[in-house]
Amino acid sequence: MPQHTPDPVDVFAWIDAAERAREEAGLVRTLRPRPPVSPLLDLASNDYLGLSRHPETIRGAQRAAECWGAGATGSRLVTGTTELHTELERELAAFCGFEAAVVLSSGYAANLAAVTALSDWGTLVVSDAGNHASIVDGCRLSRAETAVVPHADPDAARKSLAAHEGRALLVSDSVFSVDGDAAPLAGYAAACRDEGAALVVDDAHGLGVLGEGGRGALQAAGLAGAPYVVATLTLSKSLGSQGGAVLGPARVIRHLVNTARTFIFDTGLAPAAAGAALASLRLLQREPERAGRAREVAAQLYGRLTASGLTAARPDAAVVSVRAPSASAALRWAADCREAGLSVGCFRPPSVPDGISRLRLTARADLTGDEIDRAVGTILATAPAGAVQGRGR
Amino acid sequence: MPQHTPDPVDVFAWIDAAERAREEAGLVRTLRPRPPVSPLLDLASNDYLGLSRHPETIRGAQRAAECWGAGATGSRLVTGTTELHTELERELAAFCGFEAAVVLSSGYAANLAAVTALSDWGTLVVSDAGNHASIVDGCRLSRAETAVVPHADPDAARKSLAAHEGRALLVSDSVFSVDGDAAPLAGYAAACRDEGAALVVDDAHGLGVLGEGGRGALQAAGLAGAPYVVATLTLSKSLGSQGGAVLGPARVIRHLVNTARTFIFDTGLAPAAAGAALASLRLLQREPERAGRAREVAAQLYGRLTASGLTAARPDAAVVSVRAPSASAALRWAADCREAGLSVGCFRPPSVPDGISRLRLTARADLTGDEIDRAVGTILATAPAGAVQGRGR
Ligand SMILES: Cc1ncc(COP(=O)(O)O)c(C=O)c1O
Ligand SMILES: Cc1ncc(COP(=O)(O)O)c(C=O)c1O
Repeated sequence: MPQHTPDPVDVFAWIDAAERAREEAGLVRTLRPRPPVSPLLDLASNDYLGLSRHPETIRGAQRAAECWGAGATGSRLVTGTTELHTELERELAAFCGFEAAVVLSSGYAANLAAVTALSDWGTLVVSDAGNHASIVDGCRLSRAETAVVPHADPDAARKSLAAHEGRALLVSDSVFSVDGDAAPLAGYAAACRDEGAALVVDDAHGLGVLGEGGRGALQAAGLAGAPYVVATLTLSKSLGSQGGAVLGPARVIRHLVNTARTFIFDTGLAPAAAGAALASLRLLQREPERAGRAREVAAQLYGRLTASGLTAARPDAAVVSVRAPSASAALRWAADCREAGLSVGCFRPPSVPDGISRLRLTARADLTGDEIDRAVGTILATAPAGAVQGRGR
Repeated sequence: MPQHTPDPVDVFAWIDAAERAREEAGLVRTLRPRPPVSPLLDLASNDYLGLSRHPETIRGAQRAAECWGAGATGSRLVTGTTELHTELERELAAFCGFEAAVVLSSGYAANLAAVTALSDWGTLVVSDAGNHASIVDGCRLSRAETAVVPHADPDAARKSLAAHEGRALLVSDSVFSVDGDAAPLAGYAAACRDEGAALVVDDAHGLGVLGEGGRGALQAAGLAGAPYVVATLTLSKSLGSQGGAVLGPARVIRHLVNTARTFIFDTGLAPAAAGAALASLRLLQREPERAGRAREVAAQLYGRLTASGLTAARPDAAVVSVRAPSASAALRWAADCREAGLSVGCFRPPSVPDGISRLRLTARADLTGDEIDRAVGTILATAPAGAVQGRGR
């Protein structure tokens, strides 16, 4: 007996509604492919040391592809570990002052790995409210109870840890990605020591910028290699490549190798990415002044923009965050900068936890004096009325 | 008044206990770095078409690094989208028969993106019990209710979908990674159509192997481009590189660009990886016979090993799974193969859902007749007593 087949349901109709809502709110995001040689001056990327285009970094990628092939060909525990991966792990650990390291396919995967593998049913994970999405997702993925504590508040973290019986973990960005402010690492570390908790610090924006010769925020804070401290890194910012890593005591790293799902069930990092990161790391060791230069450029940008009446947070690393009067003004400002040949980041709700929209500028170590002049000039010339306070503020 | 400072707590003491438990259970996993030119014959990697070492793929990586730099320098919505990414997305979508595609930093990230962005509170995600860890993690990360249904059982999936009011998603590997068996895609698709659910298929092990010229399992099943179907891919297996992608209707891809956290908050795929994948994709289009050759090698391995009394599942793609009598026998068998110059995968509990340990062999399209002879000879010569059934079985 023939059956009546109903019209197929449009299973993605809800997406159209979501899209219309985004359009109405002016929150549609679209991709803007860039050409090989961009006409724009870049103050938007996270290529803090300008190494992504450095001939040695590129050659590191190319040689690795030649020597090891274009892919790792399997997960790290099957065929995906080359001697290159091991070399990179050894040198990263030594550079940052940790006993051991393991490399993953992204910083995102590294944070998922660290948070999930170091927590379990009954563990409390205390997470700074400003933490990166990958840490938030690590908390969601873990079996642990998560307590989100107010941003940069060691006392709140300590209280949360003290109220918990059993294993605990405090996790924080070292430098927060949107505003570029530094975490109170000393206070966080003291809370962990006193309460018997582990400290996991995501040094994505500290590596290459903070610490002696760019050894990172944990080295700068005297915490590198401490027995209760674990660092996560990304190879995609100062090192100009792709990938992530977790650094810590050897037993912690062995534990990750044995249990972290985003390590075990993911193809190893492509040799070219590992080779590029290793070349950048060696370059940074030969030219340690690059780290200080990135901080200096940030200080210059901050000094000159605030002297001209803009409101910005004093940069703790290489990110300068400049307040905009509104979300639409921020968007317009960034677009005007772009039209004038300058690429800057623009953060609006819901990407900003406090509801304040801002331009996000990144100070690259390789910006020239002329380029800094041009950047400052453009940002000021395009600033919306409400952004500029009385002179001298 | 001086306070007594207690000895600092050893916060990672629990790791030692976990490590001892692993040792006692014989389940310690360690990394085995391989040299540039391995003396081992490789039947363990997922480099199904042998493209990871192909000169054109390597040149694709090298040229991209030269042209675009070693890293994408930022997230895809800020500075991390190059024209190369867009080109790769366009060609991947066209090749596999979908309207649009978006590329992510890994297949793992692609699955997290697809499952989380296409579900929400109130969505039911029906997940095949044999699904890859990255799909399982996607379900855990999502706000949705997850129903894990028996492996490869369309009726169970249909029942689960029918019992739910509101949005639903059925998600499955196309070819399951451990055993290499194909999902019942036609049955899954019919269940989705009848119940008004979306179908998400992870074609990690189908791309390059199944379908016309390697267009994948969905093309083979006549489902590519259907309005309710979304594919996730990895660039790390047949394409010999690194990275992942989600393919589907343009509105679905726009939705991911706007909402998927592992897309938005992750640095773009390294240009070298995108360039290598694109070179492999073009090569595959010029040499479509590679896909059939991988399947043929798998069929040969299966035929010869079972004719000699081993128990294996008839391969649906390029993975041949051979039963071992026990976990320790499987481990020993793989080690003996390795000693005899052959690299094979070895899966034991808890990586195998059914508790049956096995060798996992991957058929590469570029294996020569001599190499196949050698592989079969070695596997048979090292087979444990309990693995070989009466001849002719
Ligand atoms: C603080 C922080 N952690 C982790 C990540 C993720 O690293 P990756 O992009 O290398 O995956 C990022 C940026 O992307 C970040 O800003
Ligand atoms: C079925 C399946 N999906 C997804 C992945 C993850 O892809 P990738 O390794 O490229 O992250 C893998 C393997 O690693 C897999 O086997």
